[in-house]
Amino acid sequence: MSNIRDIAKLAHVSVTTVSRVLNNHPYVKEEKRKAVWEAVEQLDYQQNINAVHLSKGKTSVIGVVLPYINHPYFSRLLEGIADAAEGDGYKLMVIQTNYEAEKEIEALDMLRLKQVDGVIFTSRNSPWQVLKKYRTYGPVVACENKLDDEISTIFIDHYQAFQLGMNVLMEKGHRKIGYCISRREGSNSQKRHEAYCDQLEKLGEPMRDEWIFEKCLHMKDGARVLQEWTKHEDAPTALVVTNDLVASGLLLEAEKLGITVPERLAIVGFDDQPLAKALQITTIRLPLHEIGAEAFRQAKSDQVVHKALPFQLIERKTV
Amino acid sequence: MSNIRDIAKLAHVSVTTVSRVLNNHPYVKEEKRKAVWEAVEQLDYQQNINAVHLSKGKTSVIGVVLPYINHPYFSRLLEGIADAAEGDGYKLMVIQTNYEAEKEIEALDMLRLKQVDGVIFTSRNSPWQVLKKYRTYGPVVACENKLDDEISTIFIDHYQAFQLGMNVLMEKGHRKIGYCISRREGSNSQKRHEAYCDQLEKLGEPMRDEWIFEKCLHMKDGARVLQEWTKHEDAPTALVVTNDLVASGLLLEAEKLGITVPERLAIVGFDDQPLAKALQITTIRLPLHEIGAEAFRQAKSDQVVHKALPFQLIERKTV
Repeated sequence: MSNIRDIAKLAHVSVTTVSRVLNNHPYVKEEKRKAVWEAVEQLDYQQNINAVHLSKGKTSVIGVVLPYINHPYFSRLLEGIADAAEGDGYKLMVIQTNYEAEKEIEALDMLRLKQVDGVIFTSRNSPWQVLKKYRTYGPVVACENKLDDEISTIFIDHYQAFQLGMNVLMEKGHRKIGYCISRREGSNSQKRHEAYCDQLEKLGEPMRDEWIFEKCLHMKDGARVLQEWTKHEDAPTALVVTNDLVASGLLLEAEKLGITVPERLAIVGFDDQPLAKALQITTIRLPLHEIGAEAFRQAKSDQVVHKALPFQLIERKTV
Repeated sequence: MSNIRDIAKLAHVSVTTVSRVLNNHPYVKEEKRKAVWEAVEQLDYQQNINAVHLSKGKTSVIGVVLPYINHPYFSRLLEGIADAAEGDGYKLMVIQTNYEAEKEIEALDMLRLKQVDGVIFTSRNSPWQVLKKYRTYGPVVACENKLDDEISTIFIDHYQAFQLGMNVLMEKGHRKIGYCISRREGSNSQKRHEAYCDQLEKLGEPMRDEWIFEKCLHMKDGARVLQEWTKHEDAPTALVVTNDLVASGLLLEAEKLGITVPERLAIVGFDDQPLAKALQITTIRLPLHEIGAEAFRQAKSDQVVHKALPFQLIERKTV
């Protein structure tokens, strides 16, 4: 803080007085206050925002935890958060975690150390209890289907959305239905799995683990699944797929190999990304931008809120 | 700072003394210092990182300016920045600007107010002089093809890259070549335009303004251009296209309308996104992740550096 010392010297006051004046502390004599501001002007001293944050106990910064920055699902969420934050004069600290628990703790520590006013988890790996532990330091928001007294959540009902995807396929006569997922352990993924099992039971079909394709997040994962699918002796006739990116990978690989969609393999995606529209993929539209905007509103409020947003089937040509 | 007041009360010292102790100010009597730390422990007071930043004059945060968060070109750059920042214990403040000059100034003000140690402009709207004006407050980095004594830059040679795109088409016998661009005023866009004009001159072809398609950034822009293209009486037989997203939009719309690519319309994209691979689009691969990583290294250093990275033609099926 050499600048503060310079001001103090020039204004013939103590460093403490300068600090008090810059932070609008009440008990400073008017003549000293004036001397400090004159010195500030003379030195063209730029206020250090960290002093402001320290004095206010607030930063107008929200932390955003994302496993992957370069994925359209998370980019769309982040855009929703950013658009809402901008309108409110907030800034965003973005933490890419690759689902590493240590990185998630780093994000929570920003809350503890008052570097941010709230933290949004677009997805997480750490136990729920860890998020709750940090709740005393400020708002923690999770984009998942949970009701908890301490943590605000914003979500779509992943059970119902997956059920809708299954029903669309079942109405077309499909009984041999598999699905693709990114991580089975995610709480949203678990809801999807529950819906899968329940719908299979309604069909009277057994649960076949080999029809659940894991680690499906990117386009190339769709291509890989299609390759695996061709090798199955008893392959599913339809797949409910993680997201539109994976669905696109499946569809394009199927086209390459001359496998007709939906005749030989029906596909339902999630999200309704521009790519799904361009490729005419039937998908469940998720309001990702709105989820992001609501997550921001929850993160700047101390009130704990739970909100579910609606989803919608977009029928195109892959079912 | 109610916590500091609590500590002061418990330690029987002034708030100023607490602040001095927490900030490692030298002139505090040992007994007072001890009393403060005991009170801190007793109250389990969590240090405010803003005090640390204030005292160090450093934040280990880099500001990243992006016009659009939800676009794979910028997502890939941001991923490169984030991957490098993580490895170095830095955090990122992300500012989405929509190319509004005011938002860009806000980002620069974070540097002036010491909220960040450096600022990266992945793209900009403000005049270069504005960036230079803020250079006294810390490192400013631009991802563009410029050499300047004060501002570090990281880029590919957009003139040469565009020239390569044109040459690929010219080698196949194309003479009627148009191009798509996002904003003509961007400095990288200007380099592309120069290369365009020079190559047309080599061909002895006139520059036709109606063959330059502006505002092309997203997939839907590609579909729009294809529609416009069909209406041209004298349409180009080949296009060098902003990025792979726009190229994909063009290609998919052409497929829908039964326009064969490359026979009736040849397309060269930029970036080499996964989508370009999946759709077999010929493209110029740009090292976006590496550009991001280098931008981060430049942003945390006071040294002014200029670096050009190599690009590469990826031949697929659209030329």
